[in-house]
Parts: sequence; structure tokens; C-alpha cells
Amino acid sequence: MNRIEVLPVPGIPEIRKGSDLGELIVGSLAKVGESLMDGDVVVVKQKAVSKAEGRVVSLSQVEPSRRARALARKEGKDPRLVELILREAVRVVRSGHGVIITQTRHGFVCANSGVDQSNAGVGLAVLLPVDPDRSARRIRRSLEAKSGARLAVVVTDTFGRPWRRGQTDVAIGCSGIVPLVRYAGRRDSYGYALRVTEPAVADEIAGAAELAAGKLDGIPAAVVRGVKYTRGEAGVKSVLMPRRRDLFR
Amino acid sequence: MNRIEVLPVPGIPEIRKGSDLGELIVGSLAKVGESLMDGDVVVVKQKAVSKAEGRVVSLSQVEPSRRARALARKEGKDPRLVELILREAVRVVRSGHGVIITQTRHGFVCANSGVDQSNAGVGLAVLLPVDPDRSARRIRRSLEAKSGARLAVVVTDTFGRPWRRGQTDVAIGCSGIVPLVRYAGRRDSYGYALRVTEPAVADEIAGAAELAAGKLDGIPAAVVRGVKYTRGEAGVKSVLMPRRRDLFR
Repeated sequence: MNRIEVLPVPGIPEIRKGSDLGELIVGSLAKVGESLMDGDVVVVKQKAVSKAEGRVVSLSQVEPSRRARALARKEGKDPRLVELILREAVRVVRSGHGVIITQTRHGFVCANSGVDQSNAGVGLAVLLPVDPDRSARRIRRSLEAKSGARLAVVVTDTFGRPWRRGQTDVAIGCSGIVPLVRYAGRRDSYGYALRVTEPAVADEIAGAAELAAGKLDGIPAAVVRGVKYTRGEAGVKSVLMPRRRDLFR
Repeated sequence: MNRIEVLPVPGIPEIRKGSDLGELIVGSLAKVGESLMDGDVVVVKQKAVSKAEGRVVSLSQVEPSRRARALARKEGKDPRLVELILREAVRVVRSGHGVIITQTRHGFVCANSGVDQSNAGVGLAVLLPVDPDRSARRIRRSLEAKSGARLAVVVTDTFGRPWRRGQTDVAIGCSGIVPLVRYAGRRDSYGYALRVTEPAVADEIAGAAELAAGKLDGIPAAVVRGVKYTRGEAGVKSVLMPRRRDLFR
């Protein structure tokens, strides 16, 4: 029986540049009588990670380019915000209906290069971490040092998807967990090769954590307990579709 | 505290045409000393639902069309399987690298119109349910009658996604739960409109269930307990992106 539990981590104070997320999470869990156990996956939202890493920009400091001004006019957005979106992007994948979908420097395809103004503060925008796999590694080391448990960490953001309305939380960085399970070559009980060969466990963990933490309650972390996973440092970068196999460029 | 639990439902016998999934799930839970509670979301995999509904086709009965034979040759697939894929589809969205991505009659964009040979039996292929929201409704009624609890049901399948390797389980049908949470018009603590307005809870529930049930263990159902959701009968069809807003046709 592979029973899974998801515990939101309540009471984490406002994150500032330099905040030690590992310390804050272990401390907040202790206040509600919880502690981390070997094998737990600690899920941390991107915005908390970005704030701790100082990835916050004041829009008043941003000078929009001509290209940013044109795109901002077309999509009805703040030109300074669009400037940040373009700086974080390697290309614009689509734009329309007030949405700008880009491929970020990391390789993620998402709305607005992940740049976000909600829950940021007046006149501020939050950018994605420079290297979310590295962020996850750093948080994991801090959590392991403070808790004594052997852990995995998944850093998540909220992405839309084509063809379906709504958004799900997905993994943008991870450490201590291999994000895709490999069933390649395995066969079902009839001897057929399994159609599905790589469940994206880190993304499913991200979504499970969102169910517990929600959007409005300001809870930036959750603990997912009981998932069977493979330890490793492939990172979420190993999830990105290689360009030659990408049918949707 | 919004603590969530995911319980796999072990010991469900092989599903046949006409099997009452509600009865099998309640019976299997009872054998491990569990019972359903008000608010539980029961997640059932598509293959079990399709088998119970008799959506199983013998490939030996399928005569491939000229178009199916040509596409099968191009993608290295069984022409009879490609014939079924095309019959289930309203259009081919992309094909390449041995993958045929279609839009199904329901409106889902997925590999092979959801037609699957794994865990089906020799020479057999399993098609998606004709109306997965209706399937979910039927299973919910049976589960509620047998358990006395007020429930939601999500029917799931395993879909790939553009730009990322691997697959996640997503909702293809639901009953008793509104699949998208509406935060439209809500504001964060700084007064900014929330960027993310519609978390796709039914899809996140589907992924959480997959973490517990896995791919290889033949467990077709899981119970997700503790999720806050809105009751309703909008169905997963309400999640499909309207054509006029679809940037990825």
C-alpha cells in the first residue's frame, strides 16, 4: 500500500532576500508539532524561492524597449512588465488574447516568462530563479542539515497548458528526486510494451502540493509523504523536450 | 490545515464488460478496513472504465483504410490500430517520431486518440469511454448508493504534453466536483488581481492519484481525501479550451 499524505506548511513568515527557506520550513513545521521524515518531498513555491534569492524587480527601474512597447500595446499590458518578460525569454512562442507565451532562458514554455506581479508588492515584479534546480539543491541541503532527514525538494510554479483551460502547478526545479520514472522496456502482464513509459512524478507531486497549499492562503510550502521515487540529481532540466523531438515548436 | 491523503484501492479484480465499478471499489476498500467518507474524491483510471463499458475492440475485426495504412507506414504502427485512432479522432494535430497526436471526438488532444493496447489483452485495443463525464456520473451514483457517502468521481487517463517529456494523469471525466476553481476577480493582499485564476483541481487530483496507484501494479482506483472543492456537474468538457481562445491549433 502506497498511501500518500500532503501536509501544507502553515505560518511561514514573509520571505525576504536572504531568507533561509530550509530553516523557516523546519521551524514552521515544529510549531504545529510536525517534523520531516526520511523520504519526504518538500515542495516550495517559486515565488518564495525567487524572493529569497532577490529576484524581485521594481518596475520603476525598467526602461521598455520599442519591441516591448509594441507588444504591450497589442496585448494590453504594462510595457515595463513586457520588457521584463522579453528579457527573461529566448523567444515568444505565441501571443494573443492578452497572453504572451514565451520560452524562458531555462527552456520552460509558459505565460509571461514566469514573471509575476501578484503577491509581490506594489510596483514590483518577481522573476523565476536563475537556476531552479540549483535553488532546489540549496534548499534541500538546508532542510537536511536542520532536520537530519534525507529529503527531496521540488520547486514549483503555476503553468497553463495548451488545449485545456486552467493551470496546474508543475516542477521547475528539483533535487534528491529523479523527476521522470523510467518504465522503458517494461512490459505489462500480457507482454505488451507499456505505452506510458515516463510518468512525470515531480509534476504530479507539484500538483498534489497545490491541492493542499492553495492559491489564496499564502502557504508557500507543503510536504508530500509516502511517494516512491528514485533519488538522483537529473533536475527538471532533464524533463525539457529536446528540440529535435518537439512537435510543437 | 488542509491535509490531504491519497489511498490506493488494492485488490480490485479484473474488470469485465458490465462490471459495477462502484461495487468493486467499495468492496475492495472494505477488505482493507477502509470506507468512503463524505467529500472523498474517488479516482478511477480510464482503462477500467472503458473495459466495464465494453469499449474493447479486437484488432482482427478492424479493416484499415488507405489513409490509416499510409499513416501507419509513416509512424511504424499497426495499420489496424491507426484505423481505430483515426475513427476516434476529429483531426490529426501532429504526427512524427512514431507518435500520432489527435483531437478526439470529445475534444481532448492526446496521443493515439487515447487508444491503448497495454494491459488490454492479446490482439485487443481499448478505446476511451464515449462520454467520460457520464461515466463518472454513473460510477458516482453507484459509489454513493453502496457507501452512503456524498462523493465526487474523477476518471483519469495518462496524457503527454508539449515541451516536456513524460506524462501525467489528467481528468477526462468528472462528477460531483467542479474541475476548475474560479478565482476570477479575487485580489491578493496587495490588491493585484491574481495572475492565476483557475487552478485545474481535477487534473491535480488525477496526478496525485497516479502517485499512489502507479502504472505497474494494476491498481485502477484511488481515494483522494481532504481536498476542498466545489460540488457541481460542469464536467471535464468545461475544461476544454474554446477554439476561439486556442493559441495552439
